[in-house]
Amino acid sequence: MAEHARIARFFAPLAQKEPGSFSLTDDAALLTPPPGQSLVITTDSVIEGIHVLQHATPAQFAQKLLRRNLSDLAAMGAAPWRYTLNLHTPAGLADAWFAAFATTLAGEQEQFGCTLIGGDSTSGPADAPIHTTLTCFGLLEGPALHRSTAQAGEDIYISGTIGDAALGLQLLQHNPQHNDTLTDRYHLPKPRLALGKALHGIATAALDISDGLLADIHQLCAASGVGACIQREAILCSAALQERLEHDPAIWQLVLSGGDDYELCFTAPTALRNHIAALSQQLGLPLTRIGETRAISGVALLDATGALLPLTHLGFEHR
Amino acid sequence: MAEHARIARFFAPLAQKEPGSFSLTDDAALLTPPPGQSLVITTDSVIEGIHVLQHATPAQFAQKLLRRNLSDLAAMGAAPWRYTLNLHTPAGLADAWFAAFATTLAGEQEQFGCTLIGGDSTSGPADAPIHTTLTCFGLLEGPALHRSTAQAGEDIYISGTIGDAALGLQLLQHNPQHNDTLTDRYHLPKPRLALGKALHGIATAALDISDGLLADIHQLCAASGVGACIQREAILCSAALQERLEHDPAIWQLVLSGGDDYELCFTAPTALRNHIAALSQQLGLPLTRIGETRAISGVALLDATGALLPLTHLGFEHR
Repeated sequence: MAEHARIARFFAPLAQKEPGSFSLTDDAALLTPPPGQSLVITTDSVIEGIHVLQHATPAQFAQKLLRRNLSDLAAMGAAPWRYTLNLHTPAGLADAWFAAFATTLAGEQEQFGCTLIGGDSTSGPADAPIHTTLTCFGLLEGPALHRSTAQAGEDIYISGTIGDAALGLQLLQHNPQHNDTLTDRYHLPKPRLALGKALHGIATAALDISDGLLADIHQLCAASGVGACIQREAILCSAALQERLEHDPAIWQLVLSGGDDYELCFTAPTALRNHIAALSQQLGLPLTRIGETRAISGVALLDATGALLPLTHLGFEHR
Repeated sequence: MAEHARIARFFAPLAQKEPGSFSLTDDAALLTPPPGQSLVITTDSVIEGIHVLQHATPAQFAQKLLRRNLSDLAAMGAAPWRYTLNLHTPAGLADAWFAAFATTLAGEQEQFGCTLIGGDSTSGPADAPIHTTLTCFGLLEGPALHRSTAQAGEDIYISGTIGDAALGLQLLQHNPQHNDTLTDRYHLPKPRLALGKALHGIATAALDISDGLLADIHQLCAASGVGACIQREAILCSAALQERLEHDPAIWQLVLSGGDDYELCFTAPTALRNHIAALSQQLGLPLTRIGETRAISGVALLDATGALLPLTHLGFEHR
């Protein structure tokens, strides 16, 4: 199917709810954010063989692409609203791929309350990796959560469990057919949108954990001009990961630096501990205190005895 | 240089004018469009070997990337404002590449009045093509120009000259060092922003010519539910192209279907011919009447004698 027919058939239906998308037939889209709300804008790519496995399914592509971006909105406390999509696919990719990709996006739009408004598509050589980019527009009433606003003497929290996705990826690299709760965590990030929204007035700073727990805590601290002490044993891990960790302490590396968690990390005043425990109950989502900000430089990691652990590799960074 | 250092050094300076960019250190950017203005959003990729030549210079990359997007804003009658940037580069690409790319973008920002607000960067295999995506935010007071609003019995105009960029590309494919006004047209699109703005209240429909003149006229007509008669000899060509055309009539194919022109095509009531001639004078930009919309189906191309010419290939479409 040629480009225009493909857009009309598979993608224009995803744009129906926004008249400013002009059914994807015009040069650009028109957006008018609701009065009194700010537009929050984030953009992330998902590339075959880098952010998803080679030969990832169209559904895995669509879900990771949208959810990576939604996780950034969650970290700012914003609600999903609109998005644009850039697709670069190898020549000859089957129409069925686009159909399945669009069907998954339709379900994701429904679940997260956002609508496609525009994009572009290009095709490359038959052996080119699939390369997708999404730019997401969220809405925000009131101020955003930021990375740079933590102060010394505050608690540091994480949502959910850490390390599952990185371990899931390791399992998939050994066997692409592996399928359990760990590989699910790799394929299907869960953007913490309800938490992000609830953290207004509670968190002093926040970000999403995508590059690796320690690397991201380092980012938050560096932006805020503080340091941190992290209790390694306080980091909440899933039962599946915990079990493997007991047999193989090298898995700590995945927990501390693995990335792809898409949980939120945030700081809060110590006076709000009860409040945060109640929020955790209310959301049905663990919110675990793993350390504190300090007037030091850098991030210190302590073991169960309080001894400093060496930090060899903070996390993933594109060079 | 690692990713965070590269962003801080080369790209954060491009974001200085927009406080909502948080100097590119946060999860997302915050935008508040000025009251009473709509946000116009467009996005286009530029990929090495597809939209620019293999081993294109960083300056050629930056200029084509921004200007392709600005041409879409021009077609809607919008003014440039903000943009996000996605960079995917092969591992080990020299810092000098990023420095030159950012330096060119700084100049382009200055020239066109827009500011970087966010983005992402990833690295791929050492032999991966450079893949860049830009999402551009324009501002618009009042209604946008659209593709779908032409009526039968109107004049069809083009700005500037057509075919130069496609011929320039052909020359570059034979000799990558070729350098003249034709190759300049390929490397450096000139988004017709002043024209787009001036067309409010004059043009009944507009789009930018990027996929090929006839293909794009076909798009405008199909969206508007009209047909068109185009006088081939009325299409304005540069002296450099005209000279080659006289020796090689096959060059007509490049004029009609070559693409990469980034001129505007628009329709207007016949009563506005004097007005449009005056606008052309005022802008110092040829605005040439090349045909008319008709209550027919499809686009008919006529030669100097009024005879129908066969249309074998309308333009470029990604399959």
